[in-house]
Amino acid sequence: MKIGFIGLGNMGAPMALNLLKAGHALSVFDLNTQALETLKQAGARTAKTPKEASTDVEYVITMLPAAAHVRAVLTGEEGILAGIAKNITIIDSSTIDPASVKAFADLATQNGNTFVDAPVSGGTGGATSGTLTFMVGSTAETYEQVKPILSAMGKNIVHCGDTSTGQVAKICNNLVLGITMAGVSEAMALGEKLGIDPQVLGKIINTSTGRCWSSDTYNPFPGVIDTAPSTRGYTGGFGTDLMLKDLGLATDAAKLARQPVYLGALAQQLYQTMSTNGAGKLDFSAVIKLYRKDGGAS
Amino acid sequence: MKIGFIGLGNMGAPMALNLLKAGHALSVFDLNTQALETLKQAGARTAKTPKEASTDVEYVITMLPAAAHVRAVLTGEEGILAGIAKNITIIDSSTIDPASVKAFADLATQNGNTFVDAPVSGGTGGATSGTLTFMVGSTAETYEQVKPILSAMGKNIVHCGDTSTGQVAKICNNLVLGITMAGVSEAMALGEKLGIDPQVLGKIINTSTGRCWSSDTYNPFPGVIDTAPSTRGYTGGFGTDLMLKDLGLATDAAKLARQPVYLGALAQQLYQTMSTNGAGKLDFSAVIKLYRKDGGAS
Amino acid sequence: MKIGFIGLGNMGAPMALNLLKAGHALSVFDLNTQALETLKQAGARTAKTPKEASTDVEYVITMLPAAAHVRAVLTGEEGILAGIAKNITIIDSSTIDPASVKAFADLATQNGNTFVDAPVSGGTGGATSGTLTFMVGSTAETYEQVKPILSAMGKNIVHCGDTSTGQVAKICNNLVLGITMAGVSEAMALGEKLGIDPQVLGKIINTSTGRCWSSDTYNPFPGVIDTAPSTRGYTGGFGTDLMLKDLGLATDAAKLARQPVYLGALAQQLYQTMSTNGAGKLDFSAVIKLYRKDGGAS
Amino acid sequence: MKIGFIGLGNMGAPMALNLLKAGHALSVFDLNTQALETLKQAGARTAKTPKEASTDVEYVITMLPAAAHVRAVLTGEEGILAGIAKNITIIDSSTIDPASVKAFADLATQNGNTFVDAPVSGGTGGATSGTLTFMVGSTAETYEQVKPILSAMGKNIVHCGDTSTGQVAKICNNLVLGITMAGVSEAMALGEKLGIDPQVLGKIINTSTGRCWSSDTYNPFPGVIDTAPSTRGYTGGFGTDLMLKDLGLATDAAKLARQPVYLGALAQQLYQTMSTNGAGKLDFSAVIKLYRKDGGAS
Repeated sequence: MKIGFIGLGNMGAPMALNLLKAGHALSVFDLNTQALETLKQAGARTAKTPKEASTDVEYVITMLPAAAHVRAVLTGEEGILAGIAKNITIIDSSTIDPASVKAFADLATQNGNTFVDAPVSGGTGGATSGTLTFMVGSTAETYEQVKPILSAMGKNIVHCGDTSTGQVAKICNNLVLGITMAGVSEAMALGEKLGIDPQVLGKIINTSTGRCWSSDTYNPFPGVIDTAPSTRGYTGGFGTDLMLKDLGLATDAAKLARQPVYLGALAQQLYQTMSTNGAGKLDFSAVIKLYRKDGGAS
Repeated sequence: MKIGFIGLGNMGAPMALNLLKAGHALSVFDLNTQALETLKQAGARTAKTPKEASTDVEYVITMLPAAAHVRAVLTGEEGILAGIAKNITIIDSSTIDPASVKAFADLATQNGNTFVDAPVSGGTGGATSGTLTFMVGSTAETYEQVKPILSAMGKNIVHCGDTSTGQVAKICNNLVLGITMAGVSEAMALGEKLGIDPQVLGKIINTSTGRCWSSDTYNPFPGVIDTAPSTRGYTGGFGTDLMLKDLGLATDAAKLARQPVYLGALAQQLYQTMSTNGAGKLDFSAVIKLYRKDGGAS
Repeated sequence: MKIGFIGLGNMGAPMALNLLKAGHALSVFDLNTQALETLKQAGARTAKTPKEASTDVEYVITMLPAAAHVRAVLTGEEGILAGIAKNITIIDSSTIDPASVKAFADLATQNGNTFVDAPVSGGTGGATSGTLTFMVGSTAETYEQVKPILSAMGKNIVHCGDTSTGQVAKICNNLVLGITMAGVSEAMALGEKLGIDPQVLGKIINTSTGRCWSSDTYNPFPGVIDTAPSTRGYTGGFGTDLMLKDLGLATDAAKLARQPVYLGALAQQLYQTMSTNGAGKLDFSAVIKLYRKDGGAS
Repeated sequence: MKIGFIGLGNMGAPMALNLLKAGHALSVFDLNTQALETLKQAGARTAKTPKEASTDVEYVITMLPAAAHVRAVLTGEEGILAGIAKNITIIDSSTIDPASVKAFADLATQNGNTFVDAPVSGGTGGATSGTLTFMVGSTAETYEQVKPILSAMGKNIVHCGDTSTGQVAKICNNLVLGITMAGVSEAMALGEKLGIDPQVLGKIINTSTGRCWSSDTYNPFPGVIDTAPSTRGYTGGFGTDLMLKDLGLATDAAKLARQPVYLGALAQQLYQTMSTNGAGKLDFSAVIKLYRKDGGAS
């Protein structure tokens, strides 16, 4: 397949490399020339604009930081819609708000194209190893069409429903994640203060009704889970600022939908405090520092 | 073994029956004469006071609603400490605050006895089937002594550390549980409003980083998990008032320990609102009603 | 003065009428033809577009529901910037976010104009009686220029600092307001439940350290303050949906500024719950219903 | 009048001195011998026990840190009830929970005495100058009896209703106070970050709907109010730990009354964080530090 790929950051670059490995022909664009060079050496054709990258391709994939970037890349004078042929499908793997997805899908439709939201989970590790999960919002028919392409970059390609439900699935999952991590942090820190061995407490929770990914896989208390970021100084993993961004998407979507999100809004303030205190680059499980002696600073 | 058993409520009665089945000789007490009669017909000796139930036994077990009841049963004129022989161990399976446990343990020590906290999880179902989990706070030596007895009533007998850590483990686990359930409720209700099929959303969360017992076993959205209380009108299960009690124990213990519990304190208000609105007897997963159309009333 | 006035809603119409009364010549625009007709009969010239209303005037004033409307009216093909002469000042009295103000000010500057934010407080009553408070964000020089015009519509014309600080003042004040009202509601409802006469409690708070506008002027408990909306069934006053909008502006601005707002975010959820439950049109002091028997429904 | 006075701390000692100045005969007790000596030199008779201090007096006044102390002083072997004559009234000016007041009142009644709750506001300054406010919970008749005595120590003697409503008034007022102070802190810190001069913002709020004691008298931003603790490094004033205690009384009373207190519970966590971070002795307005650069440490 001939695929245009726009956005070669920490996630986009390894995803594009996996597409190349799978035998696809790539036309890539990014503002970062070093990222372009890397892809070029791996066999991609480089383009000078999103428009050029979207010309003469069968699919366009975007992987960008926020909705404003997707809008610019899509609708700019040198943007995708200016170069793309009719009936070509655009797959956006950025994590953005569902309302923007709907607006972009409308613009694509007016241009004779289909816009699919396909945000991912799995982090840079999953992007490199090609084991990402894709949450796809599209018709069933479009889902079947894009599935083989996404399979070159991920292991689980999940159809979530119509346009924008891929984003809905992602932000709802991460809403739960942000809350459970702060909740586990509260409980682990309380237990420590009340005198139980955190290792023991972790084991009990992990075989009880408090069991969750934030406890049994990514436990914020150092040493409970050997492979968790907490055990290596909260490095690597999923940054606090990324969690803050996703909780922002969730509370914004809730506001638009006129839906209360009590715990989500409070958890957002906790991660905001961490970020404001200078810990935005640490793994988000570092939120436990707000509940322990060192007061939340990195 | 000859065992005194005090407190024959929804949990205590089936626990005592399992001790009888295992061949122990029971001397039981409760204010409810009907409960006493049931145990008598099953082979127990009935006593007129806690003191009488604690005389000539090798262990005393208590299963009561709150710390005030334990105190009364322990220290009253006709209480356990008035009847019990020296060196006999008292096992309290009530869910109470860690500070009270320490106070009761001191009183027991002054009387020449040992006080063990061994709260349970598993509900009335686990009490009946003998599959409870016991969280034991005691020395390692005492733990080994009481383990065979507790094994007649439960499947997992976990040593949590010294006196009161059994309660610490339980309230920390339930603190996480109360938070995750409200968090999953928020996310499921938000997803529904944003247009994703809740069944699909449930499946995605359950295989992603939002995965937790409150989502994959007890999902609050009706129909996501066939066996969850939500699917049978929020009946059975773990009542909202019980969760409210446990969150109260957690925030009280945090206050005493001078430890902040942001999400726990907020979750407590949500369950309090449910209870005040008349839904205290529903399963605690009914907290999702606060986020959906019917406004939290049962 | 010749003034273009765009936006003749519940607030804009009486404000424009006061400008006419003060002897100014008005060129008005609104999509609502009935509102136009009213102003026409009062002596205003009606325009078919914002552009037309902004042609041949010495000042342009806008009073619109949200930033999106201001953007459309400002930058549309038939918008203000297309019709306005150089060096003319645009005064926006809408309540919008500070970031949008800065963006609009930049656009105005590029067009050779000055953009002043001058949001108001005082409600429709103040708009009618000409007793509004204007919070003005501009240079000191521009403030002196616009002050005489604003004085025809308001009693207090406060200079808050440079561009956007008028909005900052308004949303910070309303952030406090939203929090104090919910806080007073919590305390009044708790006091009632604990058996004190709410009238007595109101009087004590109003002469003590809990004293605040939400208690001594707009007390949410019916009957404490005769002139408060609570005493007339929560009608009139400042609607819950308007408070919700302003808290949304505050938490959005905080997010952008990377600043935590714990109580503000929680208060926002409380008003959101009220609105979702159908009470969006009631005065915002109706938030006390969340804490009293009827569960928040209107 | 002959009055027994028990509890000669920072508040009790100056209160007792004012009673002496007014010509009353005092029999005083405290565990602190230095405090006893001070009162002795001022003309009081010192007692060796609460019982002795309560013998042969016409009123007994207690001023103690918490309910546990009141209980001990009241019911101990050498306690008030052991020494007091029938029909004598006990006035408790400690700040304690309403439920304890009712329990103590019952004990007093059984002993043939009357128990009045009369907590104060006004701090050590008001205690010294005799300008305290007393919030009295009693029958109207008893209120008339105790008013002249309280007037020797305070300026406003407010009848709040029946037994325990004095405490209800105090904790409800302080619930509002704790919330408004944190709310004003949030708004002032947000305004600062968004670029408005905090002095200007303070003035605007103080003449607008955000106006409250926490803003116009005790503003947490340094320099806004010259006489506020914030302007002298958060020293003096009402300590964070005292606010934390009062919010604890409020949330405990709410729990017992089955009443949600969303903002109160959250504010409690904020002050708890301050206290845990070592700022418990600073004035409670130091809570603004959680929202500004230095992260909440003193």
